Order: sequence, then structure tokens, then C-alpha cells
Amino acid sequence: MSSSLEITAEIISIGDELLIGQTMNTNAGWMGEQLSLIGIRPVRVRVIGDDREAILTALSTSTADVVLLTGGLGPTKDDITKQVLCEFFDTRLVRHPHIEAAIAGFFRSIAREPLDVNLAQADLPESCTVVPNDRGTASGMWFGKESRVFVSMPGVPYEMKAMMEKHVLPELRRVFNPPSIVHRTLLTTGLGESHLAQRIAAWEDSLAQEGIKLAYLPSPGLVKLRLSTYANNDPTGARDRVAQKAEQLYRLIPELIFGEGEERLELVVGRLLKENGQTLSTAESCTGGYVSHLITSVPGSSAYFIGGVVSYANAVKMEELGIPSDMLELNGAVSQPVVERMAQGVRQALKTDWSIALSGVAGPDGGTDEKPVGTVWMAVAGPDGVQAAKVYLPGTRDLVIKRSALAVLNMLRKSLLIRDLGKS
Amino acid sequence: MSSSLEITAEIISIGDELLIGQTMNTNAGWMGEQLSLIGIRPVRVRVIGDDREAILTALSTSTADVVLLTGGLGPTKDDITKQVLCEFFDTRLVRHPHIEAAIAGFFRSIAREPLDVNLAQADLPESCTVVPNDRGTASGMWFGKESRVFVSMPGVPYEMKAMMEKHVLPELRRVFNPPSIVHRTLLTTGLGESHLAQRIAAWEDSLAQEGIKLAYLPSPGLVKLRLSTYANNDPTGARDRVAQKAEQLYRLIPELIFGEGEERLELVVGRLLKENGQTLSTAESCTGGYVSHLITSVPGSSAYFIGGVVSYANAVKMEELGIPSDMLELNGAVSQPVVERMAQGVRQALKTDWSIALSGVAGPDGGTDEKPVGTVWMAVAGPDGVQAAKVYLPGTRDLVIKRSALAVLNMLRKSLLIRDLGKS
Repeated sequence: MSSSLEITAEIISIGDELLIGQTMNTNAGWMGEQLSLIGIRPVRVRVIGDDREAILTALSTSTADVVLLTGGLGPTKDDITKQVLCEFFDTRLVRHPHIEAAIAGFFRSIAREPLDVNLAQADLPESCTVVPNDRGTASGMWFGKESRVFVSMPGVPYEMKAMMEKHVLPELRRVFNPPSIVHRTLLTTGLGESHLAQRIAAWEDSLAQEGIKLAYLPSPGLVKLRLSTYANNDPTGARDRVAQKAEQLYRLIPELIFGEGEERLELVVGRLLKENGQTLSTAESCTGGYVSHLITSVPGSSAYFIGGVVSYANAVKMEELGIPSDMLELNGAVSQPVVERMAQGVRQALKTDWSIALSGVAGPDGGTDEKPVGTVWMAVAGPDGVQAAKVYLPGTRDLVIKRSALAVLNMLRKSLLIRDLGKS
Repeated sequence: MSSSLEITAEIISIGDELLIGQTMNTNAGWMGEQLSLIGIRPVRVRVIGDDREAILTALSTSTADVVLLTGGLGPTKDDITKQVLCEFFDTRLVRHPHIEAAIAGFFRSIAREPLDVNLAQADLPESCTVVPNDRGTASGMWFGKESRVFVSMPGVPYEMKAMMEKHVLPELRRVFNPPSIVHRTLLTTGLGESHLAQRIAAWEDSLAQEGIKLAYLPSPGLVKLRLSTYANNDPTGARDRVAQKAEQLYRLIPELIFGEGEERLELVVGRLLKENGQTLSTAESCTGGYVSHLITSVPGSSAYFIGGVVSYANAVKMEELGIPSDMLELNGAVSQPVVERMAQGVRQALKTDWSIALSGVAGPDGGTDEKPVGTVWMAVAGPDGVQAAKVYLPGTRDLVIKRSALAVLNMLRKSLLIRDLGKS
């Protein structure tokens, strides 16, 4: 499977709490992703306890070019990684005075005196290169051994990630000069993985001749499309090739792509509203506040989000949103007239430029033959009136809520874009 | 570290997508937890790709009593686990007609014809005991080898978990008869891990003489306290010992314990409301709909949750919740009078028995010296009037939102319980 030219990596996660499921091992997946993004292939992850023999076995049976360890660098007596590394690399701990001073300074900054065990974090193996920890007191350690590299980092994700991004990944690129890879990730919503694949099949077939690979990365309500190619000695050419294919995809499925990279739909919508100086309100039934939670999870969202109504009972739909009782009786709460009136009602009540509304059957109970669980009516009201759409997104209660929230945010995004186009 | 009497386990997770971080490996942690709950000690996890040599190496270098494999059992050509197991155990695939019939039946039930690759999932190693998959088409495989056990299961969490709970864990207990462990997990909220530990220090010291261990399992806004002890030959006695200590803890921190096991605060609150035939509404500012999302994530919550208002802008607080503008100007939105009026306003408007309200500074901006980020006022209004409390829960925006949501649900829970006590 692996070519002999590939640079390989192995991750060793150390900690009893990982083995017994007390702490989820999120580090290994993140590190694997980061390594593969710079062209180093992760081939194995091992999770072991804070146990001398287990650590020694893992170190001595590793064969990858790069071995990254996390965990076991804390100040308590279970944390033995540093001692075991000394044993494996046949070196000894030495005190680093400037690190000791930094640790003491950190503790005084939070008005505490450092204990001896805290200062002992400045004891580091003599033969390693110290990797600075900008977010904590446990330093990283970089060991070279016969053209291979071993790096030990703290297990706290926030500290490890900063250390990887700032020091370890750049240094690995410098040392191994892995075949550079150009990536671009387009974010889509509105079509499931298999239907999306069908829709873009011809385009996907055309990627091979450009040496571009495509990965589908699905999550509830979203499919990320990751394009990647080797840059070889022509990074500009590689970027251009990927850009050309991305451009074709934008023309092919413009309504499905909402952003790139780490973008989220609620950020995109927020940015569009902010750019236009416009405001938003929400009226939610089946999603029960989840849409407004997504919107307000964005820092600064108070600039455009005015508020919302969660109208779980029909009485609230009538009183707060001005929906006539005969409309509810005639059509049922999950219907086009009701969801349109919900959107218009909240837009008027909260005096916003835009509003969104949802009414659906989240389940597990309440489904009928005509309106099974997963049936959701959604509406967007704006300066040009109101429009509604029905979607069918079956699944667990949690999935119905999450997928319909993304669907209505995407509907709003399209309405905002169309109006922008109309103005220009 | 390990006693020779202990039953040990190793988990081998197979899948390229796990190595490069496309899919988070949630299986290994869950399996480790389940194994430790029945008294089997997980000593190592390995994550490897869909690669013959890697799988053979992992199998042949495993030393644990129990080896659990997941992944690589799908119908596509990357899925090679079954073939490699045949090689390792020196056996061959044979077609199981009743499994083939079940697969064909499954496809016809969703109006599709099974392909040959689908039916080939009925080919299983001759020497294994087939483990039924109640939720999918990939069967599990149980191999015995020199008093050790190897079990291969699908990687889809939903399928693997059902297979573990229904078949694999009971059978492992039967075969290995591990030292039986009695567990009880008490769920607390309202105090961080270190303060909680300080508060219950004397009680914790008393556990050792009863042979009971305590684990702190913290997550945002919650600390789970897990009590465990070996049952030896007296499970009733062990349960009694744990029950006695749990009882002491209930008396020591009654206001902090909200449930046990897999309970969630929104379920507890929902059950209390339902038992009393009472209703609830919400008025949220800083939490932006998250509290109402938690409440409505519970199936059947429409029986007691009437609706809510997300009052992000002050105009909404005034208009929808009837808060006088001079009250807002005088005290600011994050204040006791405003949050009390929010709770009373929504309770009146939506005609509910109970209501909760929050107003705070979620950050990252908007904090002041007087009201720094993490300052949250919360209120509960009910048949006996309204009460408010201020909490300071610093952290990221996401953490402030999640922790204050749990804080207000806990405040409601206590109000519901006190009123119940008053009635009886």
C-alpha cells in the first residue's frame, strides 16, 4: 500500500483515562489530519496506559519516520513519559533555569506559589531539543535518532495543538521536506453524499487526468468535498489546477456550495447580514431553539440577530406570531400557510429585515402517513415577501433537528445572495 | 502495574479514515469503558489502516486475553478484515445460507435488489462462531485461540454497540468470569471538580476502608462521581456498601446531585414537570436558544414545554417580555431586576406554571470590570413567585453558554423539588 518514498508517522497516545473511555482521544485524529495535510502519512495510532513497559514497547516497536507522543507530562507521579524517554534514549534529566523561571512566573501571575513538583517540569532530557509550550508548563521534547524523529507533547489538546501548529509541523516539513500537497475543501449542504456523487459524477471523472484526488467527508446535514494534489516542484501550477476544478464545481452546483475550509453556515449567513446592515429573527417549532442557538454561537451575532420565538405549543403560534386558529385547524401546524405566517409574524413583531421559520415533525412520535417523522416546512421572509419549502429529512430526533436547521440557514443564505445579485 | 489475575483486553480499530482524522474514533473509548465496567482491563488500543500487513502484525503481536477488532467488514474492496482473519486463523470463508437470506430480505424491505457484493457478506470464516448483527448486514466473528478470544465487529458505532451489549459483553463475562464490579455513578452540577473534591474530602477518605474507589469524571458544567468496588463473592454486600456511601453523599451535597447513571438534567426537569402536570416557558438572552434546545431535545417535551422567547436585542426584552425601558437603562440588561422581569414576562405571556430566564455576558466581547465575560443572571418564576441568582462561569463563549444553561436547569430542578416537598 505505501510507497517507499512516503514519509510515515505513528502516534502514541499515553494515558490510563483514554483506555477506559474517561477521556475521548480527540488528539490522535486531529494529529493524523494535520500530518496528512502536509504530506506525511499516518500509519498507526497506539493508545497505552501510563505504564513504563507499555511505553518502552511502543517506542521500540515503532518503525515510522515520525513518532509523535502525547500525554504523561503532567506534574503528578502517574506522569512518567519523561523518565521513560530518558531510559529509551539513554540520557538524563537536567534542569533548565529559564524554563523554571517561566513556570514560577506563571504561578505568581495567578497568585500562587509553585510547588516543587511544578518546578520539576523544568527538568528535561539532556539530549532532546526543547519544544516551547506557549499555553502551559509542560515543555515538548524533540529527539532525532538515525534519520527518524520522536516528539513528545502534552496531552491537553489546547496545548498540543498550539505546539504542533507553531513548532512541530513546520519543523517536520523542514526536516523531511515531504511531497507538498495542495488542498481545497468546498462545503456543501442540501444533498446527501450519494446523490451529490451522482450529480457531479462526470466532473469527478475529469479529476484523474489533472492528478487531483477527491474525498467526500460527510457529517449531519453537510458534505465536505476535499480536492488535493501533489504540488511537486510547481505549487503555483498545482494551485491553479485545483482552482480550475473548484471553479467548475461552483458553476455545476452553485446552490449547494456555501463556503470553504473551516467556514460554517451560520458564519456565512451572519457575514452576509452584517455586510448589508440587515437584521434577522427566528420562529422555531420543531427545532426548538437550535437554529437560534447556532446563529448566536457566532461572536458578535448581536449586531444582526434581534431575537426569536420558540413556538412549541399552538397557543404560542397564535398569540405571539398572530396565526389564526382556523388556519392551524385547517392545515395543521406543519403546513405551508402556517410556516409562512410564522415567518411573517416574527418579522413584524421583532421588526427585522429578514426572518426564518420552521415547523416539522422531529419525532420519534407524532408522525402520520401524510406527514411522517422528518417532514419539515421552512420559510424565509424578507423585504421581497415570503417563500416556503418542504423538506423530508428522516432520522433520529437529533438528526431531524440538526439537518433542518442547516436547511433553513441555507435557504436564507440563498435568499440573501439573490437579493444581493438583484441590487448589483 | 497489572496483577496476573486480571483479564486484559486490546482493541484494534481498522480503517484508513480513522488514521487521517476523517472519522473520529469514538468506538475505542466506548469499548474500553464497557470492558472496564465488567472487570476486564483495557491495556492497549491500536488504530491501523485497511492494510493486510498492518492487520496481521497487530493480531500476531497482541498479547491480551481479549482482542476486539472493529472495522473493515463492509462490502467494498477496501474491506479486507475478514480475509486477513482467515489467513491468521488458517481457515476459509464459507457461505451461510440463512445469513444470505437475511441480507436479501433486508434489501428487498427497502425495495432494492442485493448485489453480489452485498450477498458476499454472508461469507464468513469456517472456524469462527458468528455473532449476529441486529442492525446491519455485517456479521461479527468470535474466534477462540489457546484460552484467548478474538472478536471482529463492524465499525459502524450503532451496529457495534448493539452487538457488544447483546452478545459480546455477556459472552465475555461467561467465558472469563472476571471479578465482578459494582458501580454507581452520581451526577453533580454546580461546583467545579477541585471545589467539589475539597467539599467531600472527608467522605472520600472514608471510602478506602470500605474498599470503594472514587473517580471524578468532569465535563462542561458537570462532574460525574463514579463509585466502584469488587463484588467478590458477595454482590449484595458490595451493592449495600456502595449504597451506604452514596446515601451519605446525598446527605452531604443534596443540592449538587441531580441524578445517576445516564440521566441528563433536561430529562430530570422534564420528568418532574410531567409528574406534576405543569408547564414551562423560557426567556433567553446570552444562551440564545440553547436552553430551549436542550429542553426540546427530549422526546415528548411538547407535553410540558410551551415555548420561549430569545430576547437578544433590548427591544425584544421590552416589547415581548414587558420590560420597562428605564429598568434596562438603570440596571443594564445583565441584572437582577431585568432577569426577574424576563421570567415573569414570559410566564405571563405564554401562561405557563414555570418559567426560566437568563441574561449574561457570553463574550468574547462585551465584558466590563463590573460584569466580566461569564457573568450570568438567571431566574426561575413559578407559582410562588420569582427568584434570581448570579453566577460567574468564565470561559469561551461556548462554555459560558453550556454551563449557564445547566446552571439554570439545576435552579429550576431545585425549585420543583422544594415545591414538591412543601406539598407532601
